[in-house]
Amino acid sequence: MHDDERKYGLLREAALSLSLLTDEERSGMLCRLADALDKRRGAIRAANEADIEASRGKIPDALLHRLTLSEGKLDGAIEGLRAVAALPCPVGRVKERRLLDEGLVLEKVTYPLGVIGMVFEARPDALVQIVSLALKSANGLVLKGGREADRTNRAIVDIIRDCLDGAPWLMLLSSHGDVDEMLSMEGLVDLVIPRGSNAFVRYVMDHTHIPVMGHADGICSVYVDKSADPDEAVKIVVDSKTQYPAACNAVETVLVHQDIAASFLPRLAEAFASFPVEMHCDEASYSIIGGCGHACHATDEDWDREYLALECAIKVVASADEAIGHIARHSSHHTDAIVCQDEALKQRFFHEVDSADVFCNCSTRFADGFRFGLGAEVGISTSKIHARGPVGLEGLTTTKWQLSGSGQVVKDYAEGRSRFLHKELPL
Amino acid sequence: MHDDERKYGLLREAALSLSLLTDEERSGMLCRLADALDKRRGAIRAANEADIEASRGKIPDALLHRLTLSEGKLDGAIEGLRAVAALPCPVGRVKERRLLDEGLVLEKVTYPLGVIGMVFEARPDALVQIVSLALKSANGLVLKGGREADRTNRAIVDIIRDCLDGAPWLMLLSSHGDVDEMLSMEGLVDLVIPRGSNAFVRYVMDHTHIPVMGHADGICSVYVDKSADPDEAVKIVVDSKTQYPAACNAVETVLVHQDIAASFLPRLAEAFASFPVEMHCDEASYSIIGGCGHACHATDEDWDREYLALECAIKVVASADEAIGHIARHSSHHTDAIVCQDEALKQRFFHEVDSADVFCNCSTRFADGFRFGLGAEVGISTSKIHARGPVGLEGLTTTKWQLSGSGQVVKDYAEGRSRFLHKELPL
Repeated sequence: MHDDERKYGLLREAALSLSLLTDEERSGMLCRLADALDKRRGAIRAANEADIEASRGKIPDALLHRLTLSEGKLDGAIEGLRAVAALPCPVGRVKERRLLDEGLVLEKVTYPLGVIGMVFEARPDALVQIVSLALKSANGLVLKGGREADRTNRAIVDIIRDCLDGAPWLMLLSSHGDVDEMLSMEGLVDLVIPRGSNAFVRYVMDHTHIPVMGHADGICSVYVDKSADPDEAVKIVVDSKTQYPAACNAVETVLVHQDIAASFLPRLAEAFASFPVEMHCDEASYSIIGGCGHACHATDEDWDREYLALECAIKVVASADEAIGHIARHSSHHTDAIVCQDEALKQRFFHEVDSADVFCNCSTRFADGFRFGLGAEVGISTSKIHARGPVGLEGLTTTKWQLSGSGQVVKDYAEGRSRFLHKELPL
Repeated sequence: MHDDERKYGLLREAALSLSLLTDEERSGMLCRLADALDKRRGAIRAANEADIEASRGKIPDALLHRLTLSEGKLDGAIEGLRAVAALPCPVGRVKERRLLDEGLVLEKVTYPLGVIGMVFEARPDALVQIVSLALKSANGLVLKGGREADRTNRAIVDIIRDCLDGAPWLMLLSSHGDVDEMLSMEGLVDLVIPRGSNAFVRYVMDHTHIPVMGHADGICSVYVDKSADPDEAVKIVVDSKTQYPAACNAVETVLVHQDIAASFLPRLAEAFASFPVEMHCDEASYSIIGGCGHACHATDEDWDREYLALECAIKVVASADEAIGHIARHSSHHTDAIVCQDEALKQRFFHEVDSADVFCNCSTRFADGFRFGLGAEVGISTSKIHARGPVGLEGLTTTKWQLSGSGQVVKDYAEGRSRFLHKELPL
């Protein structure tokens, strides 16, 4: 066995030990960590200041903003630890219980996945959130954060190790080479969650046999139907675009039914003007709002662009069918919303739009683990396998089938001497 | 768009249409299919006779047996269709319902995965079982069966097309080239389930970006603890090995606690002798049963071998710890069993053995979708992601988060004007 495999083997053993503790013990660890972070704010903030100084002028302001762990963000992270501690225990839950025959009971029980490999952007509060979910669900964790946050991440991990007996279930990586090593640990790492650019997520998928969960693009749409309440529609589109334009759940394409385009679009353009939001318009919408100053002609590429900025594409459609068809072709299957007052159409949109999150009459920005009531999230998955949408504790668990018998053999059933009862038992 | 993509696009549309039917309509289709197969037994049996003739002498008897669709197996397949029709509908189920705020309701709802690609061995009854699960769960299906069963599979698919309006949601492939084409259809095929050799499953995983579900090996163990009832242990080990040795859930390795080895192993050897089962023994077990005629010395490779025949490896262990350690190193994480009368040890075995199925005091051969009460199975998954163990209807579904609002925007919550309620609602 190589040294690197031995290291991952030890991590795996530590994760098993973690899973043998009670939920009360693990939640106690979360609260201890919350106290320790609160007490050692000084060290964390100093490390973060150094990280910010080293990056100032070298990365865009939006990234610098993400890198900054302000007192407010630190408060939120500490509060988050206590909130996750208070959630119900996600492991050891019996999801099915069935009497196969007298004295032969089948149970499907939730267990931790084992070891999670997580690569994430330079955002130190994300580290705390990820640790909280892994610890609560009794998983081992391999972490690699964006290098701009190295000092802050190390300061936080030092505190974790100090207050949680060395936290042998946690490994912090420091280089791309370390990430490649992790990706080769099939059988020792159970799930990899990459957050970052499209190209990076694809790189991870192409370089590992470990299952990968995550999302590449966040190309989200809002379709404003002819039945929409126009005030509501303006409010929802503006929030979806402007409340945090750099988020993956911000809207990138606005589709408007032709019957209301002439009245709705000028109102939207007016509301957008104060930010201002640059509008990439198809011909029909340009003919209505082209003169308003922040409009330009859309190109073919605009329908597949994730702007992550105060820009969006706008298209007039002849029908809900055309809107659903456009979403099928161009959406990244993350979050798509409809604004309408037509219940049957809403149900059709929910059924036919094949995305992780389908919303009606609210902002796409609600697509988030905390807002969904999951406590926190390790990320948002656009895969249809395992976990889909915001991933909280449940996505970090697997199940086992546990069958308890009293000497039963299959021969007796195959030869008709015994028969299955298959009776559901209370959970 | 290429022709092949267009073909898969049409399949996807047909799958969507299938999902827009009611469960009653889809179950009615299953019953119609059962009637049609019953009426046209002659055509199916004739095609199967031709398949058998063409393969006789060319493939092992065990495979010829799998290829044969006897009247009894056909009865079972037809009965299976009606049983699956009667199961509860797996799609459109609300798994979570949460009031995020007044007038803002979140639901997590089950949906079909979309299109399933299934490659399976030359076993025509498996085709019927797979079609039943796909149709009940409203998924499109791409099928490639073992080529020895080509005539039988085509006869069955002809009947499906005749009685189910052409069944445009079903595609039957005929060549390896077709399979490679399917593996390239990322975004048009949602899940690939390969059944077959280890090498084939690995080939599929290495040649697609579509999620793959399945299992390569079935290296299953039974550990006979010192607390075991010896009569029960002999019966369980014999059934696990001999009831159907070619199955993936048959036992390959028997681990015996040293305190009972001297009394237990001779009884096991005697019971095995009538089949006979060839025993590959470690030194300790060979010293006890080496003289009984069907024993040989185990090599290092024997602990990682899937015999799929009347052979098994036998090892004496000093403790339950050693047994659990052996399973961790050599099991394929499919099904592992313990025979013991020690409740605390059983719980430890269930917790620490990291396999899809963990059994106590019953045969490993119970690891099967029908026996588990799932109606049928598309296969057994050793992945810890998505579905684990026997995969029935639930493994062919995904979920969507559906959020219904009344104009809510995130800005109000971010700026403290609104607060989340996060109140669970009845399902």
